[in-house]
Amino acid sequence: MPTDVTESLAPISGIELGTASAAIRRQPGPDLAVIALRPSTSCAAVFTQNAFAAAPIEVARRHLAQTAPRYLLINAGNANAGTGERGLRDCETTCALLAQQVGCAPFEVLPFSTGVIGEPLPLHRFKSAIPQACAALSADGWSAAARAIMTTDTRPKAASTQICVQDQWIRITGIAKGAGMICPNMATLLAFVATDAAVEAPLLQRCLDRAVSHSFNRITVDGDTSTNDACVLMATGCSGLPRIERDGEGYQALTEGVSAVCEALAKAIVRDGEGATKLITIEVAGGGSEAECLKTAYCVAHSPLVKTAFFASDPNWGRLLAAVGRAGLPDLAVREVGIAIGDVWVVRHGALAQEYTEAAGRAAMAESEITVRIDLGRGDCKAQIWTCDLSYDYVKINAQYRS
Amino acid sequence: MPTDVTESLAPISGIELGTASAAIRRQPGPDLAVIALRPSTSCAAVFTQNAFAAAPIEVARRHLAQTAPRYLLINAGNANAGTGERGLRDCETTCALLAQQVGCAPFEVLPFSTGVIGEPLPLHRFKSAIPQACAALSADGWSAAARAIMTTDTRPKAASTQICVQDQWIRITGIAKGAGMICPNMATLLAFVATDAAVEAPLLQRCLDRAVSHSFNRITVDGDTSTNDACVLMATGCSGLPRIERDGEGYQALTEGVSAVCEALAKAIVRDGEGATKLITIEVAGGGSEAECLKTAYCVAHSPLVKTAFFASDPNWGRLLAAVGRAGLPDLAVREVGIAIGDVWVVRHGALAQEYTEAAGRAAMAESEITVRIDLGRGDCKAQIWTCDLSYDYVKINAQYRS
Repeated sequence: MPTDVTESLAPISGIELGTASAAIRRQPGPDLAVIALRPSTSCAAVFTQNAFAAAPIEVARRHLAQTAPRYLLINAGNANAGTGERGLRDCETTCALLAQQVGCAPFEVLPFSTGVIGEPLPLHRFKSAIPQACAALSADGWSAAARAIMTTDTRPKAASTQICVQDQWIRITGIAKGAGMICPNMATLLAFVATDAAVEAPLLQRCLDRAVSHSFNRITVDGDTSTNDACVLMATGCSGLPRIERDGEGYQALTEGVSAVCEALAKAIVRDGEGATKLITIEVAGGGSEAECLKTAYCVAHSPLVKTAFFASDPNWGRLLAAVGRAGLPDLAVREVGIAIGDVWVVRHGALAQEYTEAAGRAAMAESEITVRIDLGRGDCKAQIWTCDLSYDYVKINAQYRS
Repeated sequence: MPTDVTESLAPISGIELGTASAAIRRQPGPDLAVIALRPSTSCAAVFTQNAFAAAPIEVARRHLAQTAPRYLLINAGNANAGTGERGLRDCETTCALLAQQVGCAPFEVLPFSTGVIGEPLPLHRFKSAIPQACAALSADGWSAAARAIMTTDTRPKAASTQICVQDQWIRITGIAKGAGMICPNMATLLAFVATDAAVEAPLLQRCLDRAVSHSFNRITVDGDTSTNDACVLMATGCSGLPRIERDGEGYQALTEGVSAVCEALAKAIVRDGEGATKLITIEVAGGGSEAECLKTAYCVAHSPLVKTAFFASDPNWGRLLAAVGRAGLPDLAVREVGIAIGDVWVVRHGALAQEYTEAAGRAAMAESEITVRIDLGRGDCKAQIWTCDLSYDYVKINAQYRS
């Protein structure tokens, strides 16, 4: 099972990470990270679907299509988004700076940026920081890298697991950042996951797509999809085990392991959502399709009224019911709908459950991790997503950030 | 032109309004209103599209289909929503109580409720308050009724206008309530508009549909569609003018007048949105269809990051750009997109406008009424909606309401 203990992350043979303080981010501390991949490491990635994809997203997509990357270059504090042609040029320059330092081609570098949108990248700060980050490269650099990529995050996010294939252990370790502008669509925030398994790139992509669709693509803090979301999965092949094939037993295990790490990272992001005080799991069952379960779940998760009720620990179930009702499901038979907060059924047959008591509702809402169960009563499909509450601090953080 | 001066509302011949304190709402003061329509008044209405429509919505729909109503009965403080079969029975009981008092049939009464969801209606409080409200019926009762239907509203909403048809004046007066759970879809909040024009019900419905689609259906406070939204338009025919026909000159004038009153009421609701400090108009032009203009406008209006930036008067245009980018418009050419705050162009060709200065952006954001103009650069269609910012007080109001 995955662990989220940052300090005891398992290193992945074939991957080294180094960080440096470039003073790009306003908060002090390391804000630039370099990840080195041993030659012949396979690499898969998913990127944001926001039409205003940031410059590094465009460049990373292009470089990844050209060759297998040798280095990732990540900076926090400046997203290099909405920066037009200059942003693309600046991004290529940072790749060239790193390539020159380590002796590879610029297109063997994948760039990633996160932070404020619309300001030009301070190139001079990269020039001094890149050599420092390269000098610090180490297999034990995961925890430092998890901290270096933070922006409004209050905690680093990291997770490790291992899976057993043919009586041998394969390791998977990942880090992520994100707290606001979180509602990934196809890709996500920034997340970097590595394994020492040997997997060809196309199969690795398949594994990543599957893992992301049930983890990073199932969370929302504020419904805002970022311009810089990206998730990379690297497979170094250093475990010594034979290559994992699509039909072999290893593939299923690998996908489960990667999914577990991604889920742990995704939940860590929601738990650290801007101003969040609670982690809320929304499970929708009884749907006619997975799509309508997701539509309902996101409608509830994006309701500011539902989110503020969770912040207040107020079992204001009418807001849950109203959110389900406005999800736009055709011909929803409201008399079939049930809603539970934790183990407490609050709505049965579309109205207040007979056995419901305010005391039980209050107790269920007082938890710091809450599962809302919604039964649509019209099919066998289900889906689950994770979200957080809406607090004074969300407004504070976003009314002050950048100002 | 419409006036929003509550105290100088023009009475509508054929309409009387009376209020009473029923102590259904926690805040003191009148919370029950009766509106009496003279016989043969035409009536049109639109109702919420939330699947969990409240009991009074179901009953009002049914009664309206049976006959032209003689009375409207409105209470604040309890929405009678999510109350199942009991809610329907209770609602019919309140109609019968009023019918008995005034000597009409119960199905000649249209019921409306607004307030907390999920609690049974306190019937005994209606019994004493209904006779009081009926005793207070007066043509000058508009202002009192606007106050009686308030819940989390901080101000009553009312507007009057008059239109000239065949050298004579027709009056239109309306009231509305609403501050939270505001994102009407087809209908809205509670709004009651009357005119002394003579119009048959089907044409009146057409006029109302048109007015609502460009006023109440173009506002959002928090994206939450209520279970109790309803808007009623009454035409008493007391002006003495001939009946307005679809092909006559009067219909266009009437529709414009009703639209103006509805727009004034809708904007008053947004201006009084829970915790709102600013009224924001979002105009999207250059779209391939009105639908994609609206999709973009709502995506921007619902972004908590955009809303908190407005609260902070922070010209964080990257958030506007990111919201446009995630609206899901197929093949959006970002290099054609322009965005202005007030008269200040911040984005041209998908990136920071050359002439933009932070000082100009800050000045534009400091206004209490702000227009955001978004040019999609791919067509001739446009749309506009109104929204408000997201403040500490929104969280405070919704974390404390009901608790």
